Amino acid sequence: MNTRNPRTRQKDYFFSAMPAEELTALCQQLKVAQTDWDKNGLAARIVALQKWKLLIEDEKSALLHALQMDTGRSWETKLEIELLFSSIDRWCNHAEDFFEPLTYKKTQIPFIRLQQDWVPFGLVGVISPWNFPLLLSLIDTIPALLAGCSVIVKPSEVTPRFIEVMNRSIAKVPELNKVLRYIAGDGITGASLVKEADLICFTGSTSTGRKVYNAAAERMIPVFLELGGKDPAIVLPSANLDIAAASICWGGTANAGQSCLSIERIYVHESIAREFVTKLTHRASILQLNAWDMEDGEIGPIIFEKQVQIIDEHLKDALEKGAKIVTGSQCCELINGGYYCRPTVLINVDHTMKIMQEETFGPILPVMTFSNKEEAIRLANDSMYGLSGAVFAGSTEEAIEVGSQITGGAISINDAALTAIMHEGEKASFKLSGIGGTRMGAAALKRFLRQKVFIIKEYNEPSPWTIQLQRKA
Amino acid sequence: MNTRNPRTRQKDYFFSAMPAEELTALCQQLKVAQTDWDKNGLAARIVALQKWKLLIEDEKSALLHALQMDTGRSWETKLEIELLFSSIDRWCNHAEDFFEPLTYKKTQIPFIRLQQDWVPFGLVGVISPWNFPLLLSLIDTIPALLAGCSVIVKPSEVTPRFIEVMNRSIAKVPELNKVLRYIAGDGITGASLVKEADLICFTGSTSTGRKVYNAAAERMIPVFLELGGKDPAIVLPSANLDIAAASICWGGTANAGQSCLSIERIYVHESIAREFVTKLTHRASILQLNAWDMEDGEIGPIIFEKQVQIIDEHLKDALEKGAKIVTGSQCCELINGGYYCRPTVLINVDHTMKIMQEETFGPILPVMTFSNKEEAIRLANDSMYGLSGAVFAGSTEEAIEVGSQITGGAISINDAALTAIMHEGEKASFKLSGIGGTRMGAAALKRFLRQKVFIIKEYNEPSPWTIQLQRKA
Repeated sequence: MNTRNPRTRQKDYFFSAMPAEELTALCQQLKVAQTDWDKNGLAARIVALQKWKLLIEDEKSALLHALQMDTGRSWETKLEIELLFSSIDRWCNHAEDFFEPLTYKKTQIPFIRLQQDWVPFGLVGVISPWNFPLLLSLIDTIPALLAGCSVIVKPSEVTPRFIEVMNRSIAKVPELNKVLRYIAGDGITGASLVKEADLICFTGSTSTGRKVYNAAAERMIPVFLELGGKDPAIVLPSANLDIAAASICWGGTANAGQSCLSIERIYVHESIAREFVTKLTHRASILQLNAWDMEDGEIGPIIFEKQVQIIDEHLKDALEKGAKIVTGSQCCELINGGYYCRPTVLINVDHTMKIMQEETFGPILPVMTFSNKEEAIRLANDSMYGLSGAVFAGSTEEAIEVGSQITGGAISINDAALTAIMHEGEKASFKLSGIGGTRMGAAALKRFLRQKVFIIKEYNEPSPWTIQLQRKA
Repeated sequence: MNTRNPRTRQKDYFFSAMPAEELTALCQQLKVAQTDWDKNGLAARIVALQKWKLLIEDEKSALLHALQMDTGRSWETKLEIELLFSSIDRWCNHAEDFFEPLTYKKTQIPFIRLQQDWVPFGLVGVISPWNFPLLLSLIDTIPALLAGCSVIVKPSEVTPRFIEVMNRSIAKVPELNKVLRYIAGDGITGASLVKEADLICFTGSTSTGRKVYNAAAERMIPVFLELGGKDPAIVLPSANLDIAAASICWGGTANAGQSCLSIERIYVHESIAREFVTKLTHRASILQLNAWDMEDGEIGPIIFEKQVQIIDEHLKDALEKGAKIVTGSQCCELINGGYYCRPTVLINVDHTMKIMQEETFGPILPVMTFSNKEEAIRLANDSMYGLSGAVFAGSTEEAIEVGSQITGGAISINDAALTAIMHEGEKASFKLSGIGGTRMGAAALKRFLRQKVFIIKEYNEPSPWTIQLQRKA
């Protein structure tokens, strides 16, 4: 298989998808090794992950280079690597708090007590996307490993270059190498992984997520899906418009909008719309493409070439239906070999347009006005997605009052897209944005563990209820 | 539609399945009403459930009569009704502990704090089986209601008589009547409910569970499945054999074995096998069928006629392959109009027999010997199911050491089938026994709630990371 470099569109990287038989053997191997990984205890798992962290630090420049080739961008990649290091530490702390010594619990029946335990799943399959290749390949992997599972990660075939580096660093920690492996491949490899794993974590599009869910149901295994979003931001009349414009511009254009938690719809009160659009337009228009120098410019290339068509289609549809560009451009542009989309502020948009309904995954900022809070909430909730959102108001209380009525798992208050920065809030994904418990915060560990209870009779006679069946004895 | 009375096999009860359009309208109604049910708060929900409890008490004799007609048994039905009352109280207490006042949480970023919230699912669909019609129709329903969901319950068409009584009592609590309804129907009605609900709880066979999971995946909604079991009991040489025999006899023959958590496989150390089988045989042989008087006899009829074929097939297969009956009979018997299965102790069994592999759902006690703990554990785990199990030993520690190696969510220690009595232990279902979190213990409430977080920036400037995109500003 081969993949294009998003900055040059050259097919400059060649790799082999793992053959199905080899994958089956690897899965078998990791399932067997999982038993000892679990038995050897949390302390040993933390030591292995901390060793690995140091080895990734040694490989930092190779990893940065691979990820920059994969994604064509610079600062988001540096952020990903930083977040990896901090997240290993954070999860190790959470896991230590979580696995407290077992205690007995009394019950309402005097001679029965309970002892709770946790049992990890065996092999977790992680299928991760191309927009944050490193971060999203590890967001479920690290807690799963700490829980005592083994893990196979299948990153997107669009961004495969970092896989080698990851496996090289893993191989240097023998105990980790037995229970963690990255594999290369496309959807076929992903489907093979779903056929072998005991639990699947999938991050990606809603349409692929649906297929993964069906395949998991077929096998009667659990699945956690983190899918698309069309996050709304609401700007109330009392909001500080400088903060709102800066935050929304950041939340809508970071990583060139290639993020599930990107702000993709902006609702602003009609009384402040003109001023807000001016400020947002200023913010958006000074951003630079990094097409000539990866280190110079905030907006990287479109990583996955098929996404170009979707962005263009959404823009075309909006413009045909009456939308107006305040700044930006009417389609992606081919510059210096790669496709780029300029940060684009749209006005005169409405919900008949794809740009307000479907996930665009580009740095497009469509602004619509509302005349009262009820209308703002109704518009924000008029979506098949329910990932997250943002509310801007003069006070936290006013913003929360509106935010509590938005269907979504995380609401940023007086800021946007904060789940990109802050991974401690516990959040579900609503509607078509996902299935399963929170992947953020300490509770996320529990997704990889099953509760088991010992119900202990401490009484040297048959229990009274056995007598119910023994009336004649 | 009509249904047979299990004691007479007469079709003596006629009912109409709810038509699909009527169900759609009802679901719509309950989804709308759910918003206020949630908004009005936990205290109001507890008041409604406590009112209902009193009204069910008024209907107790009608309910008992209907359930006895449905199932042909007496004491298990009385137990079900008692457990209903205690479980309403227990869940009200759990819910009060759960919904504590919201607090703000600091984060590692000084100007960001978190506020966690819980959001209930909208309409929960509960599809429940015929073996404990009342208990299993409410085990998910009560916590779902307390969480703030509305609920439609579709019990098995095999035991529909109690539905009327339930709806009559519900109708007397107007606020509850808006959010809770029992509906009659078969698998087609169940499938229609899966098409409308926001979350499905299914209790029943693994084969139907698989269909429900597929249908839920198709709709991208979450599902909790509680399916079949083939629970093992292990008797170690150090065990008190009187306790083991009494407990296993109870755990394997209560409700004529028609329980997912029935003991269906018994592994006993070869050194004590003869003595144990003698004691177990004594216990089993004194049990009486209730065929002539529902109040006189411990073993009720086979409730679902198709189950008779399965039990007979498992017995026939075992006997053909060399199993020997110590007490009991070689097939179900038609007595006084109903089908009955005598408590049957089998020896000379092995894992090539259906009786040791597939769910029998009858009062059959197949006993196999082992020569060491490793063999016992291997045999116990040689099953596609992983619901629960039991271990008998001279000390709690020895029993837990073995029980910790059995794949299953609840292990009774020196007793059997304790999850029938004790609903506080938190347990998952392993392998083909289920999907989703614990339905027992306080944590079960969480299955009906989604986490939502407000990530609050308290700082009157754009966040530092927005500057990353503003280097040129």
